[in-house]
Amino acid sequence: MLKLNKNDKEPVYLQIYRQLKEQIIAGELSTDERLPATRALCQEYHLSRNTVLNAYQQLESEGFIRSKIGSGYYVEAIPEYSRPETKTAPFFFPHETDPAYAYDFRYGALEPNLYKSAGFRKALREAVNELQKKDNLYNEEPSGLLSLRQAIAVSLLETRDMHVSPSQILITGGHHYSISLLQKILPSSVRTLFMEEPGHDDSVATFYQAGYEIVPIRVDDNGMMTDKLPAGKTGIAYVTPSHQFPLGAILPIARRLQLLKWADGCSGYIIEDDYDAHLRYKEQPIPSLYSLDRNGCVIYLGSFSKSLSPDLRISYIVLPASLHLSKDKDLISSPASTLIQLSIERYISLGFYKTRIAKIRNLLRKKHNRIVSFFHEHYGERIRIFGIGGGTHFVLSLPVRMKQDELLSFFRSEGIGVWPIEPYYLQKDEVPEGCILIGYGGIPSEKLDEYLDALKNVIDKLNRVGGTN
Amino acid sequence: MLKLNKNDKEPVYLQIYRQLKEQIIAGELSTDERLPATRALCQEYHLSRNTVLNAYQQLESEGFIRSKIGSGYYVEAIPEYSRPETKTAPFFFPHETDPAYAYDFRYGALEPNLYKSAGFRKALREAVNELQKKDNLYNEEPSGLLSLRQAIAVSLLETRDMHVSPSQILITGGHHYSISLLQKILPSSVRTLFMEEPGHDDSVATFYQAGYEIVPIRVDDNGMMTDKLPAGKTGIAYVTPSHQFPLGAILPIARRLQLLKWADGCSGYIIEDDYDAHLRYKEQPIPSLYSLDRNGCVIYLGSFSKSLSPDLRISYIVLPASLHLSKDKDLISSPASTLIQLSIERYISLGFYKTRIAKIRNLLRKKHNRIVSFFHEHYGERIRIFGIGGGTHFVLSLPVRMKQDELLSFFRSEGIGVWPIEPYYLQKDEVPEGCILIGYGGIPSEKLDEYLDALKNVIDKLNRVGGTN
Repeated sequence: MLKLNKNDKEPVYLQIYRQLKEQIIAGELSTDERLPATRALCQEYHLSRNTVLNAYQQLESEGFIRSKIGSGYYVEAIPEYSRPETKTAPFFFPHETDPAYAYDFRYGALEPNLYKSAGFRKALREAVNELQKKDNLYNEEPSGLLSLRQAIAVSLLETRDMHVSPSQILITGGHHYSISLLQKILPSSVRTLFMEEPGHDDSVATFYQAGYEIVPIRVDDNGMMTDKLPAGKTGIAYVTPSHQFPLGAILPIARRLQLLKWADGCSGYIIEDDYDAHLRYKEQPIPSLYSLDRNGCVIYLGSFSKSLSPDLRISYIVLPASLHLSKDKDLISSPASTLIQLSIERYISLGFYKTRIAKIRNLLRKKHNRIVSFFHEHYGERIRIFGIGGGTHFVLSLPVRMKQDELLSFFRSEGIGVWPIEPYYLQKDEVPEGCILIGYGGIPSEKLDEYLDALKNVIDKLNRVGGTN
Repeated sequence: MLKLNKNDKEPVYLQIYRQLKEQIIAGELSTDERLPATRALCQEYHLSRNTVLNAYQQLESEGFIRSKIGSGYYVEAIPEYSRPETKTAPFFFPHETDPAYAYDFRYGALEPNLYKSAGFRKALREAVNELQKKDNLYNEEPSGLLSLRQAIAVSLLETRDMHVSPSQILITGGHHYSISLLQKILPSSVRTLFMEEPGHDDSVATFYQAGYEIVPIRVDDNGMMTDKLPAGKTGIAYVTPSHQFPLGAILPIARRLQLLKWADGCSGYIIEDDYDAHLRYKEQPIPSLYSLDRNGCVIYLGSFSKSLSPDLRISYIVLPASLHLSKDKDLISSPASTLIQLSIERYISLGFYKTRIAKIRNLLRKKHNRIVSFFHEHYGERIRIFGIGGGTHFVLSLPVRMKQDELLSFFRSEGIGVWPIEPYYLQKDEVPEGCILIGYGGIPSEKLDEYLDALKNVIDKLNRVGGTN
C-alpha cells in the first residue's frame, strides 16, 4: 500500500521509493517477494510508467531490490536493521572563544589589515583572471606553485642573503604543517629535539606528538646557550636566531657558528624558525643562519603570517641540499589553495610586498618605541622589557611576586588581555614570577596610548594591593 | 682600512658594516682588538657620526663586536669559520611535469572552471569585504570557520541525509590532510586498515606511511566484499560506498548493513570517502553510509574538489559523536585560508553552490552518456565499461592482452593520455590485463567527439598490431 500525494513538493517517484524502502527495512516486504508490476502500479495510482520505473531503479541502485529480465522486481535479502534515531547531534566540541577584553594585548595579530590593501585586491583579481584562463585546474604541484617558489627564492636572496633554488622550497599550509612535513623528510633515526627554553610551544607540541624526545636548552640574554648542546648526541636544534621567541634575543655570530659546528659534528640538523626577521626597528634584519651554513644542516622555516596576514595559512620550508622530498612518499598533494598561492606571488611580483613590509615596519617601529618609552618614563628600571628592538611583542617582568594564573586573572578581571609565558617553558619550575607577554602587532596605532594607560592602571593597582617586590 | 664609495647604491653604513664583518671573519681584526673610535673614523672618511654608529650597532647586534661604555668597541671572539661558497643551489628536485598529450583523459579535472563563474567572484568579493572590516585577523578556529561548518552541516542534511552538528565538522587542507588528522584522532590501538582492492592509492599511501597494516579486501561488481572482513579483528574499513573508486560500483544496502555490523562487532571504524556522490546521472545520489550508522563508527570524508575546484584544497571530516578532537593535542591551527573558507561559505549561502552542482551534473551527464553510447556503438560488448552511472571517469577493459606499461605507452606515443589502474591495486598480480582509466571531468564538452575519435583510432590500431584477445 502506498500513500501518494501528487501535490506534495516531494516528487511522486521519490514518495514511492521512500515508502517501499521503509517497508523493506521494516520487513513488511520480505526477502524474494515480488514487487507489484510497474504497469499494475501505474494503473492503480494513475501514474506514468517513468515515475514507477524511476522509483524502482533507485531502489535497485541502492540494492533494496533486484530486477529479473522479463519477470519483474524482487526484494533483496537485507540484514535486520533499525534506523538510527534522528536527533541533532550533541554539540560535543563547543566552539570555545577566548573572552573579549576591552584592551587585548594578544600576540599574533597584524595591522594594517591586508584585505584593505588595494594591492592585495589587485593581486587577487589578477590571480582569478589567470586561473580563469586555464582549461583544467588540477592540483599538480605538491610542493607548491612554481611561480610562488620562484618569487620566494628571489625575496630570500634579496632580504636573507640566501642562495636557494625554487626546488628547495616547499609551500605548506602553515607552521604546523611545515613541521609535520619536516618530520617525514628528516631521517627517522634522528629522534631528539633540542629546544630553546623558553621556546615556541606549538612547535614543541608538534614534535612531542610525533614521539620525539624533547630536550630543553636554556636561553639567556643572547638566545640559546649553544655550549649546552651535548656534543655527539645527534638531534635537531630548534632556534629562532633572528629574534628569540619569546624573549627576543639575537643569537650572536659566535653562538651561530658554534651551533653549526655542533650540527656538523653530530650529523644533526638545525631548524631556523625565521618568523619575524623583517621586523627590526633599530638595525637591518639580522642575516639568516641558513646563509652561514656550509654543510647543509640548516632547515629554514618561513611564513607570511607576520608580513601579510596570519589567516592566509601559507608558510614555507627551505630544505638544505642534503634533504629532499621523496615525491612519492612525503607529500602527496599541496595543502595550499592555488588561488591564495597565486595571489601572494602576484602581490610579491607587482612590488606590493616590499612596500607593505616597509609600511608595517614603520608602523610597528612607532608602536614599539612608544611602548618602550612609556614604560621607561613611568617605571624606569622597575619593569624589565624583554624583546626590545624587533617583533610584535614584549615580555614584561613586573616587580611582583605572583604566580602566572593569579597575575593573569588580576589583569583580565580588569578587562586587560595580557598573556602568559608559562606555555613556553618545558620545565615549569623555570617560569619566572611576575612575567607577562604583551603583543602589539594588532593594536590600532591611534588607540595605543589608551591601551597603555589602561595597562598602567592595572599595574599600579597591582602595586597597591601588594604582591610587590 | 675601509674602501667607501659614497656614490654606491649600497648605503655607506652598510659598506662599513660589511667590510668590518669580512675583516673580523677573515681574522684580519683579532679578538679583543679595539675598533677605530667612531670620531676618528668620521674624520678620516668625512662621515657623519650616525653613519659610523649605525654600522657599529649592526655589528654589535649580530655579535661581531661589543661596546664598553666610555671605552669603545672591541672585536668579539668568533670561532674560525670559512664562508660557504656562493653558488646557485643545485636543482635537486626537478619540477617534473607530466608530458602534455594532445588528448588528455586525465582524472581529477572539472569543467566548467570555477573562476569563470560570476557567483564565485561575488562570493570572493563579499569575503574580502567581510575580512576587511575586522580589526584583527587571527587564526582562531583550528577546526575551521564556524560559518562554513554551519553551511556544510545544512548542505549535508539536505543532500546526504546527515544530521550533523557543526562541532563535528573539521575543515582541512585537502584529502590527505584529512587522513593525517584522522590518524591522530583515531585510537592509537587501531592499527589495521581494511582497504578496498582496488582502491584509492593516495589514501593507502597516507596510512601506510603512518605505519598501519594494510589489508586488501576485494571489490566485485557491488563494491567491497564485506563478507571478507575478518570478524573480531579490529580495524578501519575504508570504503567509497556511493561510487567505488576506481571501479564505480554502488555498495548495496545489504553490504552497508553488514559493514556497520562488522564495525560494531569489532569496535572498529569505517571511513566513508564520499568524493563524488553528487554526480549520479540516472538516479538520485545514493544516501550516505553515515546516515545509517547507529553506533558512531562512521567517519565521513567530504571535499569540494569535485564540486568547486580541485585546486581550492578544502576538504572536511565529519566525526561521529564517539570521536572528537582533543583541542590541545590534535589540531593546533587550521590549514585552510580564511579567505577561501569564507568564500566557499558565501558561495554556498548565496545559493550558487546548488546551482553549480546542478549545472555540473547536467554537463557531465551529457558527456557520460555520449561516451557510453560511443563505445557501445563502436565496440558493443567487446569493450567493457566500469563505472557507468556516475562520477568523472571510467575504467575501460579492452580486448587486448597487454601489460599496463605497454598499453599506456602505446596510447601515449600516439598523443593520447590514458591512465593506469595498476596504482590502485595493492596486490599487483590482481591487476587485470587490458584495463585503462579515462577521466572526462575536464574535457571540454565541445571537443568530446574529437577526443573520442582520437581514442578510437588508437584502439583500432591496437587491434591491428595484435595483442587482441
